[in-house]
Amino acid sequence: MSASQAKPVRVALLGCGTVGGEVARLLTEQAGELAARAGAPVELAGIAVRRPDKHPELPPELLTSDAAALIDSDVDVVVELVGGIEPTRTWLLSALAQGKSVVTANKALLAEHSAELFVAADASGADLYFEASVAGAIPLLRPLRESLAGDRITRVMGIVNGTTNYILSAMDSTGAGYAETLDEASRLGYAEADPTADVDGYDAASKAAILASLAFHSRVTIADVHREGIGAVGASDIRAAQVLGRTVKLLAICERVTSDDGSESVSARVHPVMIPRSHQLAGVNGAFNAVYVEADAAGELMFYGQGAGGSPTASAVLGDLVAVARNKVGNGHGPRESAHAALPVRPMGQTPTRYHISLDVADRPGVLAQVAQAFAAHGVSIAAVRQRDKHSTASLVVVTHLAADAALQSTVDDIARLDAVHEVVSVMRVEGED
Amino acid sequence: MSASQAKPVRVALLGCGTVGGEVARLLTEQAGELAARAGAPVELAGIAVRRPDKHPELPPELLTSDAAALIDSDVDVVVELVGGIEPTRTWLLSALAQGKSVVTANKALLAEHSAELFVAADASGADLYFEASVAGAIPLLRPLRESLAGDRITRVMGIVNGTTNYILSAMDSTGAGYAETLDEASRLGYAEADPTADVDGYDAASKAAILASLAFHSRVTIADVHREGIGAVGASDIRAAQVLGRTVKLLAICERVTSDDGSESVSARVHPVMIPRSHQLAGVNGAFNAVYVEADAAGELMFYGQGAGGSPTASAVLGDLVAVARNKVGNGHGPRESAHAALPVRPMGQTPTRYHISLDVADRPGVLAQVAQAFAAHGVSIAAVRQRDKHSTASLVVVTHLAADAALQSTVDDIARLDAVHEVVSVMRVEGED
Repeated sequence: MSASQAKPVRVALLGCGTVGGEVARLLTEQAGELAARAGAPVELAGIAVRRPDKHPELPPELLTSDAAALIDSDVDVVVELVGGIEPTRTWLLSALAQGKSVVTANKALLAEHSAELFVAADASGADLYFEASVAGAIPLLRPLRESLAGDRITRVMGIVNGTTNYILSAMDSTGAGYAETLDEASRLGYAEADPTADVDGYDAASKAAILASLAFHSRVTIADVHREGIGAVGASDIRAAQVLGRTVKLLAICERVTSDDGSESVSARVHPVMIPRSHQLAGVNGAFNAVYVEADAAGELMFYGQGAGGSPTASAVLGDLVAVARNKVGNGHGPRESAHAALPVRPMGQTPTRYHISLDVADRPGVLAQVAQAFAAHGVSIAAVRQRDKHSTASLVVVTHLAADAALQSTVDDIARLDAVHEVVSVMRVEGED
Repeated sequence: MSASQAKPVRVALLGCGTVGGEVARLLTEQAGELAARAGAPVELAGIAVRRPDKHPELPPELLTSDAAALIDSDVDVVVELVGGIEPTRTWLLSALAQGKSVVTANKALLAEHSAELFVAADASGADLYFEASVAGAIPLLRPLRESLAGDRITRVMGIVNGTTNYILSAMDSTGAGYAETLDEASRLGYAEADPTADVDGYDAASKAAILASLAFHSRVTIADVHREGIGAVGASDIRAAQVLGRTVKLLAICERVTSDDGSESVSARVHPVMIPRSHQLAGVNGAFNAVYVEADAAGELMFYGQGAGGSPTASAVLGDLVAVARNKVGNGHGPRESAHAALPVRPMGQTPTRYHISLDVADRPGVLAQVAQAFAAHGVSIAAVRQRDKHSTASLVVVTHLAADAALQSTVDDIARLDAVHEVVSVMRVEGED
């Protein structure tokens, strides 16, 4: 039997904005190709949108404002591109309970409720795919869930938010401050009217939760992710980074941390980081995403591509949709939740990090000794010091070895209180160096 | 039922060299983890090696010299790491005919006989996975086969052979010639005792055939791949590249070519290429691999990592093995051959390429006119010319626009015959520029 004669896989599309519009278009235009690849026609059965009358570009017979009824109708797969937590969560749980597979790009929902969704999928034998939820078109979740399933991942670190990367790239090249650059980004359409989710790191933190869960076979939610946005990154931080041949990026970092007693835990965090300009992630500019993965056997891997946008995200959605359709045609199913390791999440204060601290200090003997004493008092070891005179003050840059983040924070607090310290110019964590 | 109580998936391992040894080790050491991820224990049932007495490191009860008998025994999956065409082909066809899934790293076999293997797998419902056959640990085939299944790939271009990349990187940094650098690479273990498969491009051509087949849903064999090795790359080519801010890489290039009449074909080729130093592939040095993928919706993607070595390759094999085991536990199966597009292969002569040509010419008026006339006679359009005097000769560098490769070759032949041309210093194709 040829693919075009097989029983069609019927798709309900929830949401038809930029990504949904692309998905609808490609489903129609590439119907023949998709059928050949899936083994059966992949048929758009209906599209739920809030206001059907606002979508003259779509076939009216497909449109409905009743998402729940569309899910309950004769469809096999639900593609969810509405976003948000409710009513989306209820819709998807209902679909999965009915054995209807779900393809979603909803990072916020997954970062809070993936366990519940996986349990519902498992109970009915439905599939749950979500490649588009992290890093847009970049095939990243499938490699983590499947290609590296026989390996032991130790680290996932990357640029997963295009808006903040655009802003930090622009600050690096123009020397402008944060507020000014954000305004410019909004004007050019690189930042949303309300940029909070991006610049405060919520978007990246959702993605970190998803990545950490998959990489470490554990349940990590957004509440477990330490989050700092880029609002506190100033032109002085960028300059301090440049002086040392570094640049500033907002990174999502998910690590497997082994304690002295051999027990393992997961650290998941999002914060600005100084990385060397020679680091592969340093060259990732503008709205591009890139994610670096380290695994015991595979070694270092990097994945690079467009992290957002209608077409790239639609590509990831359609890849999942073909997989779901193939599984349906072949009576199989995709990978289930893999949370067997159940590693605990390590609090940020106990996570090993390295700090770069740039200070303006009094230009007199003994200041370095005082500063060094503050580090020693917290058990923090110094990796490098750079001192430079300028008029009546001196600039002092300290880069530490790895230490517990809380100890580093306390050290910075103590140093700021020293009489000889005029100003703490820049404090930032450092990654990508030995 | 927990994974450890499920019926084990029994694995026959054929070959136990560097990669096989790692696979055997990881299967044993990570048994618990693998069982949790696969949904059933993944059990090493036997290892076929040529000389069992040469493997004191392996459990003797698992060893056999009779691969065919091991395949016929009570095993579910055959992991093939022997390489070569026969008897491997016969073994794998036998395994697939018995409904036993195959995981293989054998690029040479796949590049010649993948159609036959896929047909056998399809007939019995067995799986055929081969992530390790291209670019070692880099998850590349699964993204092409699955993540991008809903997209239209237009180009796959990359560094897929570590030995030649090591040699070209070394020539670029030392200025040394080819023969000398190959000797050094052999001495350091970066080149095999018989380096033919690598330096003559056979290894990369096998990979190009596999990549083109998957990317363009067509059957492409190694015989379809135009192949040039690095033996003809000289120090003068490297210098000519450096003068123009370029570097030389051996690339596998698979392209979807659209003719004027709208018909599509596939070009698959392996040859040395000049790329700008700013290109992402230019920074890939030593034994690393990187592959660049362009698709209509996804845009540009890049995959980077270790392309060879025991552990990285074992990581890819184990990822496939977990997938096969999961499929078996879930009564499903992996993706089948996707060759529905059946695009014809375009001969190299008709493939559009761009040339860089560096000449030593007589230092007198009218020479450029003669050279330009030779290009015009073949309908080749010139993109840029650079002329520089040196003593009694002048150096002339021409970079062309896209033209049929055969027309470019004929142009070079004609130019070499001009009286005013003292020497054709370097001729090389150019990629990665607009």
